[in-house]
Amino acid sequence: MRLDVVTIFPEYLEPLNVSLVGKARARGQLDVRVHDLRQWTHDKHNTVDDTPYGGGPGMVMKPEPWGEALDEIIASGAEGQQPVLVVPTPSGKPFTQELAVELSAKPWLVFTPARYEGIDRRVIEEYAEHLDVREVSIGDYVLAGGEAPVLVMVEAIARLLPGVLGNAESHRDDSFAPGAMADLLEGPVYTKPPEWRGRGIPDVLLSGHHGKIARWRRDEAFRRTVQNRPDLIERTDPAAFDKKDRETLSILGWGPREDGRFGRVAPDVEE
Amino acid sequence: MRLDVVTIFPEYLEPLNVSLVGKARARGQLDVRVHDLRQWTHDKHNTVDDTPYGGGPGMVMKPEPWGEALDEIIASGAEGQQPVLVVPTPSGKPFTQELAVELSAKPWLVFTPARYEGIDRRVIEEYAEHLDVREVSIGDYVLAGGEAPVLVMVEAIARLLPGVLGNAESHRDDSFAPGAMADLLEGPVYTKPPEWRGRGIPDVLLSGHHGKIARWRRDEAFRRTVQNRPDLIERTDPAAFDKKDRETLSILGWGPREDGRFGRVAPDVEE
Repeated sequence: MRLDVVTIFPEYLEPLNVSLVGKARARGQLDVRVHDLRQWTHDKHNTVDDTPYGGGPGMVMKPEPWGEALDEIIASGAEGQQPVLVVPTPSGKPFTQELAVELSAKPWLVFTPARYEGIDRRVIEEYAEHLDVREVSIGDYVLAGGEAPVLVMVEAIARLLPGVLGNAESHRDDSFAPGAMADLLEGPVYTKPPEWRGRGIPDVLLSGHHGKIARWRRDEAFRRTVQNRPDLIERTDPAAFDKKDRETLSILGWGPREDGRFGRVAPDVEE
Repeated sequence: MRLDVVTIFPEYLEPLNVSLVGKARARGQLDVRVHDLRQWTHDKHNTVDDTPYGGGPGMVMKPEPWGEALDEIIASGAEGQQPVLVVPTPSGKPFTQELAVELSAKPWLVFTPARYEGIDRRVIEEYAEHLDVREVSIGDYVLAGGEAPVLVMVEAIARLLPGVLGNAESHRDDSFAPGAMADLLEGPVYTKPPEWRGRGIPDVLLSGHHGKIARWRRDEAFRRTVQNRPDLIERTDPAAFDKKDRETLSILGWGPREDGRFGRVAPDVEE
């Protein structure tokens, strides 16, 4: 997979040399190219921004450097190959695990992290006529630029590529990963020693009884999800809940509402 | 504000020397200290992880190095001063702009980005007895570690500190920021030249009529929000919509539902 990033802060992308992504690059699984947008400016101040039409605070990134940068990068691809353009912006659609999976199947992604108030709209319109352009937001908070979101997205995408994830890591029980734990947060994890600062570990984890351990983990996942992300349970099709799930949810004060979906119907008896 | 980060990949935090956060550090507004967790290990392999109790794939971070690291860092604070512990985890509560604002008012934050399947649960329980501990998730996707989320959170928090944001940037019309545009995504922005690759800019932005420009921006914000984040409009109290907002929403196919909230009630006539 090839990844290009165009930014005015190339040094912000240094973490792409580290850890999982760095190793995947070293192995040749990822071809990452970070470009300084200012190389496509032509004035002595390397200007990339100007005041917004219509007035108001902040600056807007000028269309010309972005246009020249994207033209040159797109032209550098193999014959007939076109990238997906990934535009980090708080005004985009949410970046989700589902989108990470979709993008991990693409051969080539170009990221355009902006600063200030964003990129002149015409740049997006111009390239959307010929390319698959995704405007995406990593969450409901305000950042200073798109570089941190690019680090987040590249990491989420890269770890899904075949052979990138080592043995110490795993896809299986990930929160938000498809499978039995889909839409449930992971519960607590423990490792040696069996006692630390007077704190033990739950007996069931020492029982060797795989069924009981799986059940305990699922119950803990429900507890955590009810506490931190009730929205995930509210939007789950109740057909996914087995009899024991319903018992656990009932203890936590959750049950079917009028519309059939689960929600809080009583206080949590454990609290 | 003091920020400590404990990680097995200190080099991943290099972006904290760049841009807005880097400048705030240089000016002395931020005291950022990045620590290598392995300095609190005592075996020759500097082991930080072990297999999970109860079996399963992946590794769990051992409690001892984290305990020693946190004890030492907490003890280094001024007399009586205690940090807020910020634990990035996909099982946490969502990190939002509201939480960024809350955390930006704290004098001291300690971040504990984990790798693998996470940190032994007892560490969180131990410190939660004495400290304000926040387990937070930056979004519904799976990453390789908590370092990228720390970069995201530090940037979101740091830009809210007095004097950190320069003139080229602004809080006012931010998506997710409180105020007139709360719960609306920002619409398109434009700067010079007035024509680029045959594309002009909307006439209204050249009109000099502040009222019309503000109205156009708000209508565009509604268009963008309906398209990319309908959930934001669905959860907004309709009392926030003025007469013209309702007209714009109506054109987009949105109107009041039985429960009073706005939702899609007809096709978008513009599409």
